[in-house]
Amino acid sequence: MRVNGQRLWDSLMELAQIGATDKGGVKRIALTELDGQGRDLVVRWMREAGLTVRVDSIGNIFGQRPGKDPKRAPVGTGSHIDTQPSGGKFDGNYGVLAGLEVVRTLNDLGIETEAPIEVCAWTNEEGTRFTPVMMGSGTWAGLFKPEDMHLRPDFEGITVGEELKKIGYLGTAPCGPSAEYPGFAAYFEAHIEQGPVLEDADLPIGVVTGALGQRWFDVEIVGQEAHAGPTPMPLRRDALLALSHLVQAVNRIALAEAPHGRGTVGFVQVSPNSRNVIPGSIKSTIDLRHADDDALNRMEKAAYAAAEEIAAMVKTRSGGVSVKVTPATQFPVCKFDPDCINAVRLGANALGLANMDIVSGAGHDAVYVGRTCPAAMIFVPCKDGISHNEVEDAKPEHLEAGCNVLLGAMLERAGVVVAKEKAAAASTLA
Amino acid sequence: MRVNGQRLWDSLMELAQIGATDKGGVKRIALTELDGQGRDLVVRWMREAGLTVRVDSIGNIFGQRPGKDPKRAPVGTGSHIDTQPSGGKFDGNYGVLAGLEVVRTLNDLGIETEAPIEVCAWTNEEGTRFTPVMMGSGTWAGLFKPEDMHLRPDFEGITVGEELKKIGYLGTAPCGPSAEYPGFAAYFEAHIEQGPVLEDADLPIGVVTGALGQRWFDVEIVGQEAHAGPTPMPLRRDALLALSHLVQAVNRIALAEAPHGRGTVGFVQVSPNSRNVIPGSIKSTIDLRHADDDALNRMEKAAYAAAEEIAAMVKTRSGGVSVKVTPATQFPVCKFDPDCINAVRLGANALGLANMDIVSGAGHDAVYVGRTCPAAMIFVPCKDGISHNEVEDAKPEHLEAGCNVLLGAMLERAGVVVAKEKAAAASTLA
Repeated sequence: MRVNGQRLWDSLMELAQIGATDKGGVKRIALTELDGQGRDLVVRWMREAGLTVRVDSIGNIFGQRPGKDPKRAPVGTGSHIDTQPSGGKFDGNYGVLAGLEVVRTLNDLGIETEAPIEVCAWTNEEGTRFTPVMMGSGTWAGLFKPEDMHLRPDFEGITVGEELKKIGYLGTAPCGPSAEYPGFAAYFEAHIEQGPVLEDADLPIGVVTGALGQRWFDVEIVGQEAHAGPTPMPLRRDALLALSHLVQAVNRIALAEAPHGRGTVGFVQVSPNSRNVIPGSIKSTIDLRHADDDALNRMEKAAYAAAEEIAAMVKTRSGGVSVKVTPATQFPVCKFDPDCINAVRLGANALGLANMDIVSGAGHDAVYVGRTCPAAMIFVPCKDGISHNEVEDAKPEHLEAGCNVLLGAMLERAGVVVAKEKAAAASTLA
Repeated sequence: MRVNGQRLWDSLMELAQIGATDKGGVKRIALTELDGQGRDLVVRWMREAGLTVRVDSIGNIFGQRPGKDPKRAPVGTGSHIDTQPSGGKFDGNYGVLAGLEVVRTLNDLGIETEAPIEVCAWTNEEGTRFTPVMMGSGTWAGLFKPEDMHLRPDFEGITVGEELKKIGYLGTAPCGPSAEYPGFAAYFEAHIEQGPVLEDADLPIGVVTGALGQRWFDVEIVGQEAHAGPTPMPLRRDALLALSHLVQAVNRIALAEAPHGRGTVGFVQVSPNSRNVIPGSIKSTIDLRHADDDALNRMEKAAYAAAEEIAAMVKTRSGGVSVKVTPATQFPVCKFDPDCINAVRLGANALGLANMDIVSGAGHDAVYVGRTCPAAMIFVPCKDGISHNEVEDAKPEHLEAGCNVLLGAMLERAGVVVAKEKAAAASTLA
């Protein structure tokens, strides 16, 4: 039993036409007219595959394939189809269309499952126009209220609610598990890795066991702006020199918690930012991640300590430099369900696909959905580990392999109905 | 013999009204309508003080007070009245109005000099709207051609020539020493220090012996933009980590050439500059300065070597980071004339003003003028060493002291005519 890799690829390429960029990427930002067009295409495909489509109050799309036992909670899969401003063809889109390909394959083979199968497209995962990120799955998981989310504005003051209405996706189904639509029995999400680990290890499948906890901080360094020429070195209060020590400290802190520790300074705004002026102040950020809460605690503590040490170190005769670190956002460590993880691993092994356990460094809809039900993810390699970029790329054979693993894992959890006559034939042959 | 400190202060405050900012600074950018208004005021004051005013083809203003011997080259002084976009009241303005105050004092006391005295206001010293910086004095010194400078555009494409004409300062006098207007016998410029050295040493007068040579470089660091989460530390090609090492190297290189070594990274542009993305590329700058060319050569060599070492160091399994350093601009080391320096030092000592030798870290009009004649400068402290800023401040008593030193130095070089009757009276008394 195998999915149709060519059909999956063709669907990915067709969806990528909506918002296609000159450089081969996709710009289909959440809740824009183009997002609406993308949703329309996905919904048409869902209906053509026989799925019953509903849209909830935050615009999440669910396409259900009935199971033999309508009382059983569905086994879900999916991702998102909104992209970054300079996004690629695969991030999110792959997870939605891999789910659709699973359904199409079941249809082709006339396979009935015990539990229903549900394919989801979550609203606004990227968070590039409207915050928070993973808005749809987060609302579905009860972290945010739909009515609050409807009021969230973009940079021009246009709200989520207005745009959902405009593109026709302000649905009436309840957002989140309800009496009418129970939560998932299990949830799987296929996704490109967005990192270089699988490519580096030359493996087609990553069995995702969880996601790193994340702690984000804002950094403000204040020294003294001064002329680069007339200010002798011992009298300088150089904010950039302080930042240089902080960047290295963050790097050391992450290396000390290998292999899961990550530490990144990604944003730097220097003031006044002129080649012949000593930087007077800097706004920056720290992003710490780890698979373990204790390690995250150690990392956070070390970052605060480094800020203090640096402030003490850069002190000069004429005064010091202050280094202020304040918490911005955090996401707790996510550990996926052991049975779901095992379903993915067995699925890969059954197909003879070499695989490794991997922890997701980024957040995904499955992390939020996984707060309401057993969940796991399947990663496939992407070229150079690059995503959120128009050059984002993935190999058709890897996408097909990941989809086959998804099919196996979902069937393992949903249960295949063996038709009486087939079962009889099987026993005769045995 | 003393200048009138209150009159000097009042003139500074009156000129500072033109382009005054809410925060107490001045925004009077070169060749704007406000610059024209400032020039008109200075020219009116020059004429009221009996000076003969001429304007040259780049808009430099010269006000001459005749000497007894019209064949002698004048002793010059001055600076500029254009400001930074968020500039102060003193940078440049002090040098022009201190020259004017010297003339007013000579008038008050009825003193005739052997050589003429000339007060100058040089065009576009700041270079904030039109490059190059020190355009007026540089053109006068023959480094740039007036006809080339006339074509220089601002960010909106308006040229120096157009604006000079519009504000009425496209003069007809030749720019640079000529048969009709010979170069200066000596040139002195009074200026706020723009650094913290005099304040730190608690001295009112700096005897400026020269200006640091400057070598400016552009830096381009290219690594690999990647997601902060999914990219393990050993696979990162973090451009900011490379920059952090470069910032520290530049700092070390300058410290190794104390006390005159300066090394500054003032500009940083991170791409994509997002908190959860590893910096993929960075544009930055290096500014190296020293009073000695050999030291500058060592510093430059060390900066190139550091760039190479850092590129080798940040190398990872998945590739490296390139660190490209390219020359941008340079100003050679300037050593002022020993006799002029001595005139300043003797002038300060004669007034009992505590002083120290100091090397200017910044460029000044006197550096260019000094290529054509003997020159030196006088520094007075400014608050916290801050300039190019609306909070730029200086004490009236320091400004007065600097002006008195200027008066003494100029008279020493111009020669005071002792009137026959006074000389006779003096010999009778002796």
